[in-house]
Amino acid sequence: MKLFTGLSAFSITPADPSGHVDTAALARLLGRIAAAGADSIGLLGSTGAYAFLSRHERQRAVEAAMECVGGRIPVIVGVGALRTDEAQALARDARKAGANGLLLAPMSYTPLTEEEVFQHISAVAQAGELPLCIYNNPSTTRFTFTDDLLARLAAVPNIAAVKMPLPADGDFEGELRRLRSRTPDGFAIGYSGDWGAADALLAGCDAWYSVVAGLLPSEALALTRAANTRNTSEARRLDESFQPLWSLFKAFGSFRVMYAIADVLGLCEAAPPRPILPLPHRERTRVKDALDRILV
Amino acid sequence: MKLFTGLSAFSITPADPSGHVDTAALARLLGRIAAAGADSIGLLGSTGAYAFLSRHERQRAVEAAMECVGGRIPVIVGVGALRTDEAQALARDARKAGANGLLLAPMSYTPLTEEEVFQHISAVAQAGELPLCIYNNPSTTRFTFTDDLLARLAAVPNIAAVKMPLPADGDFEGELRRLRSRTPDGFAIGYSGDWGAADALLAGCDAWYSVVAGLLPSEALALTRAANTRNTSEARRLDESFQPLWSLFKAFGSFRVMYAIADVLGLCEAAPPRPILPLPHRERTRVKDALDRILV
Repeated sequence: MKLFTGLSAFSITPADPSGHVDTAALARLLGRIAAAGADSIGLLGSTGAYAFLSRHERQRAVEAAMECVGGRIPVIVGVGALRTDEAQALARDARKAGANGLLLAPMSYTPLTEEEVFQHISAVAQAGELPLCIYNNPSTTRFTFTDDLLARLAAVPNIAAVKMPLPADGDFEGELRRLRSRTPDGFAIGYSGDWGAADALLAGCDAWYSVVAGLLPSEALALTRAANTRNTSEARRLDESFQPLWSLFKAFGSFRVMYAIADVLGLCEAAPPRPILPLPHRERTRVKDALDRILV
Repeated sequence: MKLFTGLSAFSITPADPSGHVDTAALARLLGRIAAAGADSIGLLGSTGAYAFLSRHERQRAVEAAMECVGGRIPVIVGVGALRTDEAQALARDARKAGANGLLLAPMSYTPLTEEEVFQHISAVAQAGELPLCIYNNPSTTRFTFTDDLLARLAAVPNIAAVKMPLPADGDFEGELRRLRSRTPDGFAIGYSGDWGAADALLAGCDAWYSVVAGLLPSEALALTRAANTRNTSEARRLDESFQPLWSLFKAFGSFRVMYAIADVLGLCEAAPPRPILPLPHRERTRVKDALDRILV
């Protein structure tokens, strides 16, 4: 199994209100993902609040992760930062701690040009000396990758994969064909946006970068394996069971909902970092009902 | 003169490639603004690269500024951060260093809800204990304030002003009338977006939050005073002289162009923080030509 294929489960990063990571709670969550048999862990992704944590706390999280699950499951670490030198430092930190791969979104404040994103990602890939997945997530970075830019980046050493948002027109097969024609053999193309995962996997993408798998790894893995073995009806049935949760993800943002799921399941009591507010208490019932549909 | 009225000149923050602020160069730039007689300084705004600087470096910049121009001209300090607790800490830092006012944009990674922005800005205003200007800048924060949210925030203690982007329909008078009807007397409404400043000032806004004034304070002040004294033809003539520069601002982003202006004028040799790239060298001639139109 290659690093950027199959089910990549993105964990939340439990932390106190001051941004101090609860490494014991994090280790428990990661241990569950490894035990379920997911193909990789996505640590410190958007779901893992990387943008809200200091370099020191991110390093603590990576070290705790490698101590807990290192060698049992590949760990891909998000190293995004607004400054190129800081993202490079985070990439070196992750490598030194034993991470298996890197994930990099072009975080921005001042909107970035294509050339700036190219140079930024190339510089981090060079500094990291690990396989790197381009994190294409316009909803948080507000940067839209063109095919030309992805093709250019795919030719840079260490850049091995892309994590795509769901295509606006829903045409996964067309997009995969287009991107594969522009990128080297072995360059892995995966998708995030959990509600599109069944379609993406059935269309033959390489990986599902899954938020829900961070807390429901077995259930997300069942969906992944059904789709990968072309068991379409089973994949559709499982996706259907997730629908109420996808509705909550779309309504409130998966970042907020994941903390509520962790709480409802009794896995940890962390809250998202302010200014992000927890899900309103009245919505907890909807979370419970959605989980009841999945955990049968 | 109230704090958030007239010409507020936003300085770049000269720093080395690692993000270490050149406080001597910063002091020179701020001294020029004070000497020109601008109404306030906007320190560590978007132009001042606040999003790219560490808390420690931001504190060094504020301390250098207050030492150089404190008491001669009010200094408004940008205290934006992705975390609420960090923005609160920056606000306390600025107050302790003697800043006169605060500027706060709802920086985001995970897109924020209205309630999150309300609570974030309110919490920072409370912690800062200084008059605070809401920094409404969708091009960098990707958050759009509704009139309802501005009205709600304008009622919060310490929140005294808003810095608005140019209205999409160009109707400054209509927007000012609408916002003034929803905000308390004395709540100051100003505009950023230098190429719309003449229109905004002639329509009777309270302040021009000016990028160009950070490096050309006398010239920006002449435009401000012409508009404030209803000398429409002179305001239009001065605005016309800025047009080639406004074109460069629109084409490359004022953040990138300002470093080139500082270089061309021999004021400092700093570059923007990576990943932001300096203006291509071939564009320097256009910058020189644009400056020749203004500095006659």
